[in-house]
Amino acid sequence: MSDLFERLREIVGDAHVLVDPDLRAPYETDWTRRFTGTARCVVRPADTAEVAGVVAACAAAGTPIVVQGGNTGLVGAGIPTGSEVLLSLTRLTGIEPVDPLEAQVTAEAGVTLENLQRHARAAGLDFGVDLAARSAATVGGLVATNAGGIRVLRYGSMRAQVTGLEAVLADGTVVSRLSGLAKDNTGYDLTQLLGVVTRARLRLVPLLPARAVALVGLATTEDALALLARARGALTGLAAAELCYADGVALVRSYAGLPAPFPEEYPVYLVLECAARSDPTDELVELLGDAGEIGDATVASDAAGRTRLWAYREAHTEAISAAGIPVKLDVSVPLRELASLAAQLPPTVDAVAPGARLILFGHLNEGNLHVNVLGAGAQGTELTDAVLNLVAAHRGSISSEHGVGRAKARWLSLSRSDAEIATMRRIKAALDPPGLMSPGVLLP
Amino acid sequence: MSDLFERLREIVGDAHVLVDPDLRAPYETDWTRRFTGTARCVVRPADTAEVAGVVAACAAAGTPIVVQGGNTGLVGAGIPTGSEVLLSLTRLTGIEPVDPLEAQVTAEAGVTLENLQRHARAAGLDFGVDLAARSAATVGGLVATNAGGIRVLRYGSMRAQVTGLEAVLADGTVVSRLSGLAKDNTGYDLTQLLGVVTRARLRLVPLLPARAVALVGLATTEDALALLARARGALTGLAAAELCYADGVALVRSYAGLPAPFPEEYPVYLVLECAARSDPTDELVELLGDAGEIGDATVASDAAGRTRLWAYREAHTEAISAAGIPVKLDVSVPLRELASLAAQLPPTVDAVAPGARLILFGHLNEGNLHVNVLGAGAQGTELTDAVLNLVAAHRGSISSEHGVGRAKARWLSLSRSDAEIATMRRIKAALDPPGLMSPGVLLP
Repeated sequence: MSDLFERLREIVGDAHVLVDPDLRAPYETDWTRRFTGTARCVVRPADTAEVAGVVAACAAAGTPIVVQGGNTGLVGAGIPTGSEVLLSLTRLTGIEPVDPLEAQVTAEAGVTLENLQRHARAAGLDFGVDLAARSAATVGGLVATNAGGIRVLRYGSMRAQVTGLEAVLADGTVVSRLSGLAKDNTGYDLTQLLGVVTRARLRLVPLLPARAVALVGLATTEDALALLARARGALTGLAAAELCYADGVALVRSYAGLPAPFPEEYPVYLVLECAARSDPTDELVELLGDAGEIGDATVASDAAGRTRLWAYREAHTEAISAAGIPVKLDVSVPLRELASLAAQLPPTVDAVAPGARLILFGHLNEGNLHVNVLGAGAQGTELTDAVLNLVAAHRGSISSEHGVGRAKARWLSLSRSDAEIATMRRIKAALDPPGLMSPGVLLP
Repeated sequence: MSDLFERLREIVGDAHVLVDPDLRAPYETDWTRRFTGTARCVVRPADTAEVAGVVAACAAAGTPIVVQGGNTGLVGAGIPTGSEVLLSLTRLTGIEPVDPLEAQVTAEAGVTLENLQRHARAAGLDFGVDLAARSAATVGGLVATNAGGIRVLRYGSMRAQVTGLEAVLADGTVVSRLSGLAKDNTGYDLTQLLGVVTRARLRLVPLLPARAVALVGLATTEDALALLARARGALTGLAAAELCYADGVALVRSYAGLPAPFPEEYPVYLVLECAARSDPTDELVELLGDAGEIGDATVASDAAGRTRLWAYREAHTEAISAAGIPVKLDVSVPLRELASLAAQLPPTVDAVAPGARLILFGHLNEGNLHVNVLGAGAQGTELTDAVLNLVAAHRGSISSEHGVGRAKARWLSLSRSDAEIATMRRIKAALDPPGLMSPGVLLP
């Protein structure tokens, strides 16, 4: 091992091979405190050449690698298990000027989502992915995990934004395709299959200056779906449709000290956002005026008002985290199954972990529910098993956007057939024969 | 071989194993008459189970397969070379009712694009891909080739429409994932890697009732790019931006008997289409009124007028085909390289094939030019070599949307690095160890 450490120090410099446990610690536990492990060392390369050197050195030594971006993942994929070199990409923070003709930009893996957004907006454009972890989540991690978030309805997931990639393969070879062609049909799209993402060429979207947000109180999940269907049909600028429930709103209100949004409490809440070139407020108000299924609604067009309404939904993750370490699942089902799933989750959770607190929220248009359970005690695995089996019975996915990581690997067969898993194993073996890249992640 | 024929007849019925050369002939030559070959037989299964049976029987016999949809491909990928069983999927024409809540539909591989569009529109929705071969191109072929066309600017290529797939692997195993989840991050997206596509779950888009089309005459490719940049910034409903040149418009006019679009001739023509919920004509007219770079322009909002303006662009393929068998290339470059490529193509072609007729047209937003050369005589390969090297020098792709097929396989290394090609080979070997699926296609 000391030979490998020596070699790594030669590549990245002494200061960037962290062996001391105190220095490693921030990298060895995820931000939710649900996953923790030990790395042989943390290596912090500064550029693609250094990443390639580190990967080649580990390959030569037969030492496994776990790759980490902003460490905001939710399934433990970036956390080591004891034997790995932890490769942190946060020093790769370069970002090129925006290309206004192509509406694209090239960013290194360690650029945070927030910095990417800021950079795009300064050039009069915007980036199509947004999510609550924007201040820490990085380009490399977003690509590697195909991150989702609140704009999937409008612009698709992270992979849809990628027009070019630079990555280091399992043997240390660098593959670079950064010319950013909008269409290129010369063989397999390797975006998801290459090794360590070091740089990405990303599509940008128009910066839409006018926004309006509605918070709507509803009686049932079915009513929220009916409103969404009408919103998709009527609103040109629909940009987000975010679902939450009374329990979650109550938790957020007590955590963030927010007033009640309406005189009455509602079982279900929906945040709708429109973004357009000209003010979409009238369009949104008209939609809500027509709607028999609505209990109450409030609309804000100014920035402060929009932030205030978004807070009821967006503070969920933080409020939950402040209340304890939850069992955290991320599932999606076909829309026609969603109300049934939402109705069956409380008794399912209660049967396994009586008295535990279930908080549901998510991205309505994708049928995507984040299932958070506080106070499940020692029942975490049993609870996960019960919920994911319920999701599978509704023809759903056990991971809508967070990925499988280590946390869900043992349940993969609930979402993928034996033939698919065998196919993935064959591809993984072809690309990483000794299995040194993130062992134990995805394929159990 | 007679054992295999016997087995295939058992699976699909005597009438659907075509051994007679006259019966095979329509399948053995592509519609452009550039690719022709011989199949051992043509097999026409009726459903997924029969496809699986055929693939398993061929795998057991060690006989290679070439898969064919509507036979509208442009790179010879569906044409046999002598030793293959040709698997035609045109009898898989089932299509399920549109799901309005999800805005999705499940269609079998042999459904034509035109029938899919008609089916979606009857349900008040639309399909996001459109291309001139719509009457014959099929869902299976569109997915397998990741087809592009005239709506990529608005909705992306074919793969972006796929939310679920059923396919038969190289060993005859059926993989089915048709629940149509908008997001599902449980491992590799195998859409492009599985074997024979038998069914797809497809995303639908809003049916936009109001359309306006402009035909614009311009002095240079740079002017067209400047207009596109302004159009992207100003038009909410921009749905297509199609480029052509004076030579092509002259050919189309003489083929289709069309009048001159403007009193003067222009070197460059751009078709812009807007599609929206309310009439986009004013928005389009306003854009064109502002534009210093425009020579002349005409706008049509009614269906007949739109068809008339589109004809100058859309009849290119047919007019070229009527004039002879062209050398046909399909390339894309970064937008800032496009004007330079367009300027260098005529002398490049003239140097290799003096007197040949070069017709360029394409999808401007993707930097995608269709390069057609009539009268190249025996210089086809040399011409292809010269043009594709010119494209590579402009950091472009040798196949923007048509794919590599057999026609471009020997030039693959102009667009993909050795490391990428080696990676593709490893994946191909992992999925199809004996190499029986479409041998010679993509990887030379």
